[in-house]
Amino acid sequence: MTLWEGRFSSKLNPDAWKYNASLDIDKRMASQDVQGSIAWANAIHKAGVIAAKEHSQIVAGLNTIQQEFSNNTFEFAENDEDIHTAVERRLSELIGQAAGKLHTGRSRNDQVATDFRMWMMEAVSAVDSAITELQKVLVGRAEIDLAVVMPGYTHMQRAQPILLSHWWLSFFWPLQRDRERLSNLNSRTSVLPLGCGALAGTPFPIDREELVMALNFSAAAPNSLDAVSDRDFAAEFLFCASLLGVHISRLAEAAIIFCTAEFGFFELPDSYATGSSLMPQKKNPDVFELARGKAGTLIGNLTGFLATLKSLPSTYDKDLQEDKNQVFSSFDILMSALPVISGALRSLKINAERMRSAVDAGMLATDLADEFVKRGLPFRQAHHLVGKAVKFAISKGISLDEVSLDELRALNPDNPDLLSDDISTVFDPEHSISRRSAAGGTAPEAVASQLSQAKSMLLKE
Amino acid sequence: MTLWEGRFSSKLNPDAWKYNASLDIDKRMASQDVQGSIAWANAIHKAGVIAAKEHSQIVAGLNTIQQEFSNNTFEFAENDEDIHTAVERRLSELIGQAAGKLHTGRSRNDQVATDFRMWMMEAVSAVDSAITELQKVLVGRAEIDLAVVMPGYTHMQRAQPILLSHWWLSFFWPLQRDRERLSNLNSRTSVLPLGCGALAGTPFPIDREELVMALNFSAAAPNSLDAVSDRDFAAEFLFCASLLGVHISRLAEAAIIFCTAEFGFFELPDSYATGSSLMPQKKNPDVFELARGKAGTLIGNLTGFLATLKSLPSTYDKDLQEDKNQVFSSFDILMSALPVISGALRSLKINAERMRSAVDAGMLATDLADEFVKRGLPFRQAHHLVGKAVKFAISKGISLDEVSLDELRALNPDNPDLLSDDISTVFDPEHSISRRSAAGGTAPEAVASQLSQAKSMLLKE
Amino acid sequence: MTLWEGRFSSKLNPDAWKYNASLDIDKRMASQDVQGSIAWANAIHKAGVIAAKEHSQIVAGLNTIQQEFSNNTFEFAENDEDIHTAVERRLSELIGQAAGKLHTGRSRNDQVATDFRMWMMEAVSAVDSAITELQKVLVGRAEIDLAVVMPGYTHMQRAQPILLSHWWLSFFWPLQRDRERLSNLNSRTSVLPLGCGALAGTPFPIDREELVMALNFSAAAPNSLDAVSDRDFAAEFLFCASLLGVHISRLAEAAIIFCTAEFGFFELPDSYATGSSLMPQKKNPDVFELARGKAGTLIGNLTGFLATLKSLPSTYDKDLQEDKNQVFSSFDILMSALPVISGALRSLKINAERMRSAVDAGMLATDLADEFVKRGLPFRQAHHLVGKAVKFAISKGISLDEVSLDELRALNPDNPDLLSDDISTVFDPEHSISRRSAAGGTAPEAVASQLSQAKSMLLKE
Amino acid sequence: MTLWEGRFSSKLNPDAWKYNASLDIDKRMASQDVQGSIAWANAIHKAGVIAAKEHSQIVAGLNTIQQEFSNNTFEFAENDEDIHTAVERRLSELIGQAAGKLHTGRSRNDQVATDFRMWMMEAVSAVDSAITELQKVLVGRAEIDLAVVMPGYTHMQRAQPILLSHWWLSFFWPLQRDRERLSNLNSRTSVLPLGCGALAGTPFPIDREELVMALNFSAAAPNSLDAVSDRDFAAEFLFCASLLGVHISRLAEAAIIFCTAEFGFFELPDSYATGSSLMPQKKNPDVFELARGKAGTLIGNLTGFLATLKSLPSTYDKDLQEDKNQVFSSFDILMSALPVISGALRSLKINAERMRSAVDAGMLATDLADEFVKRGLPFRQAHHLVGKAVKFAISKGISLDEVSLDELRALNPDNPDLLSDDISTVFDPEHSISRRSAAGGTAPEAVASQLSQAKSMLLKE
Repeated sequence: MTLWEGRFSSKLNPDAWKYNASLDIDKRMASQDVQGSIAWANAIHKAGVIAAKEHSQIVAGLNTIQQEFSNNTFEFAENDEDIHTAVERRLSELIGQAAGKLHTGRSRNDQVATDFRMWMMEAVSAVDSAITELQKVLVGRAEIDLAVVMPGYTHMQRAQPILLSHWWLSFFWPLQRDRERLSNLNSRTSVLPLGCGALAGTPFPIDREELVMALNFSAAAPNSLDAVSDRDFAAEFLFCASLLGVHISRLAEAAIIFCTAEFGFFELPDSYATGSSLMPQKKNPDVFELARGKAGTLIGNLTGFLATLKSLPSTYDKDLQEDKNQVFSSFDILMSALPVISGALRSLKINAERMRSAVDAGMLATDLADEFVKRGLPFRQAHHLVGKAVKFAISKGISLDEVSLDELRALNPDNPDLLSDDISTVFDPEHSISRRSAAGGTAPEAVASQLSQAKSMLLKE
Repeated sequence: MTLWEGRFSSKLNPDAWKYNASLDIDKRMASQDVQGSIAWANAIHKAGVIAAKEHSQIVAGLNTIQQEFSNNTFEFAENDEDIHTAVERRLSELIGQAAGKLHTGRSRNDQVATDFRMWMMEAVSAVDSAITELQKVLVGRAEIDLAVVMPGYTHMQRAQPILLSHWWLSFFWPLQRDRERLSNLNSRTSVLPLGCGALAGTPFPIDREELVMALNFSAAAPNSLDAVSDRDFAAEFLFCASLLGVHISRLAEAAIIFCTAEFGFFELPDSYATGSSLMPQKKNPDVFELARGKAGTLIGNLTGFLATLKSLPSTYDKDLQEDKNQVFSSFDILMSALPVISGALRSLKINAERMRSAVDAGMLATDLADEFVKRGLPFRQAHHLVGKAVKFAISKGISLDEVSLDELRALNPDNPDLLSDDISTVFDPEHSISRRSAAGGTAPEAVASQLSQAKSMLLKE
Repeated sequence: MTLWEGRFSSKLNPDAWKYNASLDIDKRMASQDVQGSIAWANAIHKAGVIAAKEHSQIVAGLNTIQQEFSNNTFEFAENDEDIHTAVERRLSELIGQAAGKLHTGRSRNDQVATDFRMWMMEAVSAVDSAITELQKVLVGRAEIDLAVVMPGYTHMQRAQPILLSHWWLSFFWPLQRDRERLSNLNSRTSVLPLGCGALAGTPFPIDREELVMALNFSAAAPNSLDAVSDRDFAAEFLFCASLLGVHISRLAEAAIIFCTAEFGFFELPDSYATGSSLMPQKKNPDVFELARGKAGTLIGNLTGFLATLKSLPSTYDKDLQEDKNQVFSSFDILMSALPVISGALRSLKINAERMRSAVDAGMLATDLADEFVKRGLPFRQAHHLVGKAVKFAISKGISLDEVSLDELRALNPDNPDLLSDDISTVFDPEHSISRRSAAGGTAPEAVASQLSQAKSMLLKE
Repeated sequence: MTLWEGRFSSKLNPDAWKYNASLDIDKRMASQDVQGSIAWANAIHKAGVIAAKEHSQIVAGLNTIQQEFSNNTFEFAENDEDIHTAVERRLSELIGQAAGKLHTGRSRNDQVATDFRMWMMEAVSAVDSAITELQKVLVGRAEIDLAVVMPGYTHMQRAQPILLSHWWLSFFWPLQRDRERLSNLNSRTSVLPLGCGALAGTPFPIDREELVMALNFSAAAPNSLDAVSDRDFAAEFLFCASLLGVHISRLAEAAIIFCTAEFGFFELPDSYATGSSLMPQKKNPDVFELARGKAGTLIGNLTGFLATLKSLPSTYDKDLQEDKNQVFSSFDILMSALPVISGALRSLKINAERMRSAVDAGMLATDLADEFVKRGLPFRQAHHLVGKAVKFAISKGISLDEVSLDELRALNPDNPDLLSDDISTVFDPEHSISRRSAAGGTAPEAVASQLSQAKSMLLKE
């Protein structure tokens, strides 16, 4: 039985039935559907649409159904078109004809949008917790690895020495932005469609503000036509998920490279690595690769749904049914990835010596130029001079700190006094790091202050 | 048990296990996995790697497993990491230690790529059949609706009269291109990875050409590194599916508009329409809306997978595991949509009168301009003159054919002889249609010839 | 001359030069680059890096350059690699060697990120204004069209009567959400990268909080590695632009359909319509079609950039140079579309009679069911009964209000008293509309209150 | 002047004009537009629509215009709406009223589709040449680097030794598939829309087969409605470009990693590397990073256009105007990237010693397992035994070849005879490579045969 068959002279073609039915997907919102229905029963009772007795029957029936869902004893029928139909069908089995009164003044259009928003608010909270957990791991690592010096890279080329703690924290802040975005999204999700009917509003004297409070929303949707077709919150969630996925993919990419034999900076514990069916020696960072690869899927879910939304003509169109598929997929990807990445990072083995020894003298070229600046040379000329020294060192097969003062003087005949003093103190990575003490820099004191800023973010919640 | 645990001192973390395992997805390729394994058993037997007795044990065991899959009696174990592990595990239960010989010289990297290509070739064939079915419905409609005159639109504005048959066939040719694309794809899919090992080739004297024939491929992959990482065929399938989805979405969009009360050209039979839980009168074209909406998902699947592939560094990376998820999703969307759209179109009710009466005199403005061309006026001037007549008609609130010869002469004082003869024959839609008899045009004879061209395409298969 | 040639023994290959150079794109940020450089000159002066005299020279030179950009007299040189190089090159032409001191402690990595964020804050403000303008047009239309009754649609099928004002306002709220999103974005954009150097922070005692104030940012980026590679704000802008584009596309789609001859609800003025080179009668809604089509491009810009960002390994990679291309494209699309859509809607001709007469009796089926609810029938049964009446009416070729009380009684033999009273008042669209007076509904009083809520949003800014 | 203003009583609003005009984009097809117009002039002359004298005037005028385009002397007028209008406007300046006859029986709808397809066929040929050039570079490198042994990777972990030649060729085959795809596309592009009018066909007796030959197409479009709206070829080009971009991005990613100090396998020549404005020592692989980053943009162009196409209702809609923007962008990206990547690879410095010394004993673990297979152990047990040996070696801090026979025996007490013979020959990378001599493997003879297969592909063209 469908909710709408009165006007139809034949049943839906079986292929079309399967194509149209959404139960497999939307049954995930069973609990929200029942909660929303209880609130609706209260509202129409208060509006005088149903009598006290019917009201208690309906609410009791819905509570039983909620229990059945919790206990996993709810039985779906073959012709339950969607979760709303299933609940109304079961309600009528439980309480008889009064069940037919529940849908008065309501439509599946405002109902499904309400269910989905309720689900979304819980989902956003769950994702936020999983991100926070990952942030805590990063902060924890940053605290442990405060003394580890490593090469910082740009363009994947060695650039300047940094602290590993600083590097860990560089992944904290993108996650913090992700959480802000999710929080912004929440304020747009908590706008209640219920009471908007199919499109034109409800004809019964429903107090929508009371519904808002009953269902923990923050406001009632101001326009019924918009309310039943607004899926901005779904698109915005898919975007937040994509960007979060991108952030994780960047961390994963770096981790994969640091796990190579050639870098050798990181080693996964055996409990987070996998092997090969053919090559006995292999230990692969699959967990990072999967996180990187699934970022693509997250982008696809967003793109696909935006393409679905584009050009929809008005109010509710059935195309919107694609919303949940994509949102559930992105949610599941995040909720499986985040704990695994957290776990893997928590137990990652750091090879501090390898990192420290990868800092070569060339990485201090900027410090050498800065030294010349201190001695009076404009930076651009200092840069040029050091560039020539680098070229000279390469041609001689030596490292930058092995170029002698005499050789430097020969490269720079015009400014002899520039090279009167020794320059070797420049080639100390710790010194280079400690110089970068302005806010946001890699110097230990700046990182310490950054760390406490990060921790205060975690305390806020 | 995993295939690779020898080197590891601890088990995979349970979250990581779930994250990494692919059985839920790749078990769909169970049959292909067994077939490929039988071919491999034959190949390594022929290469002298396994003895005759082991060979028969292995083949017998694999046949049993194939049977179990067919009968749905195969039981997966909790720690089956993927379909390959499940099959090898079951084989060793069935035949003991000899099972451990099957994987000699083979890797899951070349194995899964082989399985997936085998699956893809069957999938392409299934999609091709479903498209052909839809093409047949379109040809059938074109044959029935040969006498129906309707407005042709550009920019959704009435443009020129056409035959409904011509309109139906305009959706045939895009599908034909889809089938060509799928056929092109097939030639790239049927390139065999098996015998490429994990990445570097197999060290045993395997005759890969024999494997090609045994598994109905057309060639052996020429480079082992490429063979294990090439997922072009998956991306190309996702593209073919997207463009096919776009074609269906365009037909769906037109059908939805033609089903509106305002157009009233089409009516869905009750067996392909759905109703509203709130509004008793509603009869909605959900099947077309879903087909339109799911085109977005198809685009997303393509986009997501291209993003996953982008920048992968080398040979096999675990990111590639996302391939099947997307491909299976797109395949399922198409295989559920195509039969429903075919069914809906087959049983669609056409309101020929409504269509015919929507052809107004303004739609013959080009014919009027052409008439002036025949009478010697350059087309650009004729166009301008008719444009002024249209403007005049609008200002008077009359239709274009109600503008009198005198009024036309007044709009065009310089060329009085142009309007010496009557122009009313121009305002006959059937005449307009019959004039467009050059190849590809809407004239009955051109459509008849197009129809037989279309039918010959269907016979080819 | 490049800023970095010291270390190189040969010039860049000419193809590679063109491939690498970004001046054509980033010169759009010329003004921001100069502003940021002035702030930097002040900062390094205050930090004791440059003397007062050099400082005044540099600032004077930069002011001259800003003037040249304003007057369009700045001349780019053939080997200006990017806008930063061009400005430094010109500065050294103007003030000589002191120019070489400006880049001390700064890198193009923090510089370009600063420029781009400054540009973005202005861009967001411009888009916000253009949206607000469109919202005003919608509010204006809603005020004018308060008495116009039209069919509301779901699934493009006539559903329930609504007010045109309500329909206009249904496009106001999505735009309001777009503006909220842009405002949220702004708080994440106004985080200052300057003072982060290439990646590790600046080694000079720069007061970054002063820079924050000088450049109208709201905070200093907390981590230098993140600061130079964070392009979240660009991705988020592209998302906001996509969803805004989707909203416009939905309005455009509806407008295109309402402009068809078959609907005839809307007519574009000649100043916003275009014609055909062939068909003299054509008047096409190109402006709406372009807005609809370009929503696709906006989605593509977002998708492409997310794919570019995905898997970038660390800090600054040159891939990030693709950011501006996409952002500028989306900005230009919005800034050309919004005023045109505003203009077109402002001058749109409404055919109120056509709209009113498209409201047929079937659209009041829900009201009839509600009437039966009032008379005691549970809604589900009432729905079913009216459904049967609809089916009966169709079979007789009459409209729903033409079904007699006797015929209704025959459809519903069990509840004779249900049909004792007349039901004809139900079939009054204005009555149906006025019943939907709960918040967010289409009743005149609800729309009036919604209208003042919308106006208060516009006053806020 | 527009081509269509007759019917309109006011000019287009200036913002709307700019929004609608496409000249900036479509003037790139100027030459094709003139060629197509000459063919059309010939066709309507032959069909008796224009007289011999007018025909020669028109053709002479068009030839002059073609000359003006070649010489860059064609002057566009401010109100040229698009390239078609510009050409017709200029023609009428040159030859007067006869110019107004050229557009008889033709529409901009079939004209622009024809121009675009002509452009596309040239574009595909240009891209094909640029790919071929890159393939030649790869083949050239493969010939030079035949003796270089390097680690092959899966999951970026050292897997098995391979030849660098084999690695180079692994990027040849994806490009070969790209070229096949482009060739397939060509057959679908060379279908001629001209002669289809605005949508319904041309009413004049045009011989479309002659047009096909005159313009070097391969067939006439079979359905006029489809012909004016089919942009499959544009979407398919965008897909081919995306996948080609993905292939280049994968090569770029590998090259970037091989250029790191830690790998040190590749070094870019100075003519293909760039430096840092701040860090004098930096030498960055920008050309590879840009190629990798722009793959994202290519994906976005495809996605955006598919979203634009989705749900377009019928024949020509103005949304289609977005086609050229995306296609030109993708074409330009490829045509700038391909020569730069070819140049960079051609002059790349290979560090063969670094590569060879990165092959460690662990990479021969599979060979050791194979040796045990040869000695009678089933592969799965051999894999397990070697896995244990790897674990043992790690725990002792030694490499796999340093595990003694006695220690191996202790790990495998059950099969003492397995370890009676020496196993040290296994640890020879060249031996391991030479074993993989089955087709597609990395053994020198297999690579030699692959190389000649690749060369024969290049000769085919």
